[in-house]
Amino acid sequence: MNSKELYGNILRKRSFLCVGLDSDPSLFPAHLNSYENPIFEFNKAIIDATSQYAVAYKPNLAFYEAEGAKGWEQLEKTVEYIRRKDSSAFIIADAKRGDIGNTAGRYASAFFERMDFDAVTLAPYMGRDSVDPFLKFDNKWAVILALTSNPSATDFETMNIVLDDINAANTPLYRKVIETAMGWGTSDNIMFVAGATRPEKLGEIRKYCPNHFLLVPGVGTQGGTIAEVAKYGMNSQCGLLVNISRNIIFAGKGKDFDSVAAEKAKEAACEMASYLNF
Amino acid sequence: MNSKELYGNILRKRSFLCVGLDSDPSLFPAHLNSYENPIFEFNKAIIDATSQYAVAYKPNLAFYEAEGAKGWEQLEKTVEYIRRKDSSAFIIADAKRGDIGNTAGRYASAFFERMDFDAVTLAPYMGRDSVDPFLKFDNKWAVILALTSNPSATDFETMNIVLDDINAANTPLYRKVIETAMGWGTSDNIMFVAGATRPEKLGEIRKYCPNHFLLVPGVGTQGGTIAEVAKYGMNSQCGLLVNISRNIIFAGKGKDFDSVAAEKAKEAACEMASYLNF
Repeated sequence: MNSKELYGNILRKRSFLCVGLDSDPSLFPAHLNSYENPIFEFNKAIIDATSQYAVAYKPNLAFYEAEGAKGWEQLEKTVEYIRRKDSSAFIIADAKRGDIGNTAGRYASAFFERMDFDAVTLAPYMGRDSVDPFLKFDNKWAVILALTSNPSATDFETMNIVLDDINAANTPLYRKVIETAMGWGTSDNIMFVAGATRPEKLGEIRKYCPNHFLLVPGVGTQGGTIAEVAKYGMNSQCGLLVNISRNIIFAGKGKDFDSVAAEKAKEAACEMASYLNF
Repeated sequence: MNSKELYGNILRKRSFLCVGLDSDPSLFPAHLNSYENPIFEFNKAIIDATSQYAVAYKPNLAFYEAEGAKGWEQLEKTVEYIRRKDSSAFIIADAKRGDIGNTAGRYASAFFERMDFDAVTLAPYMGRDSVDPFLKFDNKWAVILALTSNPSATDFETMNIVLDDINAANTPLYRKVIETAMGWGTSDNIMFVAGATRPEKLGEIRKYCPNHFLLVPGVGTQGGTIAEVAKYGMNSQCGLLVNISRNIIFAGKGKDFDSVAAEKAKEAACEMASYLNF
C-alpha cells in the first residue's frame, strides 16, 4: 500500500484508528480459554467488531512469541484473517526489530514475504544497515521509532546530540533519527513512531517531517488523547495512525467483549472524524 | 547462571567461544533439506561438533522467525538440545528486543520461562523500561547493545551526546548507554554488546565497565580478530564471550559440515586458550 491509498482509506472510513492487537491471553474473557486457538479467536472477534472503524491493525509480536510456535501460528492466521475481512486494512508488525543487514533481511522476509504485513516497526539504534533491507520491498513500510510513549524515552531519545562542536549546535536524538532516516527512503516507505504522551513534542516532530505518516501509540491507558494528537500531529493529508490497544480490546471483560470493543472503536473513530476537515 | 559460574566454565573449557546459530536454510548442505526439521538437524550436528570448544550458543531469532511457527518450534528444540548436551552452556537469544514495560515483560517470559535461555540481547533506544522486566529473573541476563559491529553503527551509536552544556562536556552515545545501564543492574545480570570490528573502541569500553562481560560479535566474516578482541577487551576474569557464526557453522558446505565446524571451533578455542593466562 502506498501513502495515497492509505490516505484514501482514511477518508473513506473517516478514521485514522489503528487497533493494537496486544492479545494477552491472561486478560481474555474466561470462555475463550476453551478454544484451541484462543488468541486467534479473540483477534477474530475483535477484527469483526472493529473493522468498519479501523484503517489499521497492529499485532505486537511479544504477545504471540510468549506462546511459542502456537502463538506464531495464530499470528499468521490473524494476518490472513485481517486480509480476508478487509483487503484495505494496513497491517503493522509491532516487532521493534533492528539487526545487521544480513539478519535484517531475514526479518524483512519473515514479515513481508512469509506473512503479508504492510509495515514493521524498527529500532534505529544500529543505523541504516538495519533498516535498508525493509525498504527494498515495494509498497511496504519501515516504521522507525523516534520518540516513544514510555516514561524512559527520556533516558536516551531526548538527549541532545552534538551537531557542530564549534557553534555548539545540538539536537535531540529523536530529531536526529528522524532527519537522518528521512534520507534513507521516502514518505511512501518510511513512517515514524511518535508517542501521544508528549503532545507538544508531536508538534515539533510534525515540523521535522511534514509529509511522513506518524504512528502514534500511547492514547488511552498510557494517558495520551486523540484531541491532542490531532491538534499537534495532523498534516494536510491527515498523516496519522493513532493506535489504541487495551482501551479497545480489553474494555469489556465478559462474553460481550467484542461489542464493547466495537463501541470503543466507534467512539474513537467518531472523534477522529470530527478532526478530519478534508 | 551467574558470572562466577560462567567464568568457571571458561576456565574449565579454556575457551570463551560463543557459536552463533544463524541457521539460514538456504546455506545448508543439500542433504539436510530432506529432513522434516532441517534447522534443528543442522543445529544438532553443529552443537554435537562444537560443544567441547564452546561455552555459549547464540541463535539469532531472525533465522527462525523467517520459517514461521515451524522455525519457532525448531528454536525451542534447539534450546532444549543444548541444555541436554551440555548443562553448563550459556544460551543467548539474539533477539535485540526493546519495548515498553508491559510488552517487554511478555518477551522476558517468552525467553526465560517458556524457553530456557540464559540471556537476551536488547536494544537500549527506549531506555530503562524496556530492560527492567528482564532483570527481574534470577540468574538471567540482559545483553544490551552498546557499540555494534555493523558499518552503520556510526549513524547514531558513536555520535556525541551533550552531558553538560556549560562546560561543553560530551560523550559518545554508546558510552552513555553503558554508563546509564550499569545503574540498572549489576555485572551479574547485565552484559554489553561491543563489536570486534572497532578493536580500539573495545579498549575504551573495557575502561567504562571493567567488570562486565562483553558479548563480542564481528569476528570472521565481518573482519574482527580474536587476537585484537583479547588484547583490548579482556579483564582479569576474562569478561569476554566472542561470537563466531558463519565462519564456523558454514565453513563446510558438504556432508562433513559438522566436522569442518568442529575444526574451526577447535582452532578458535585453541587461540582463545593462549590468551587465558589464568
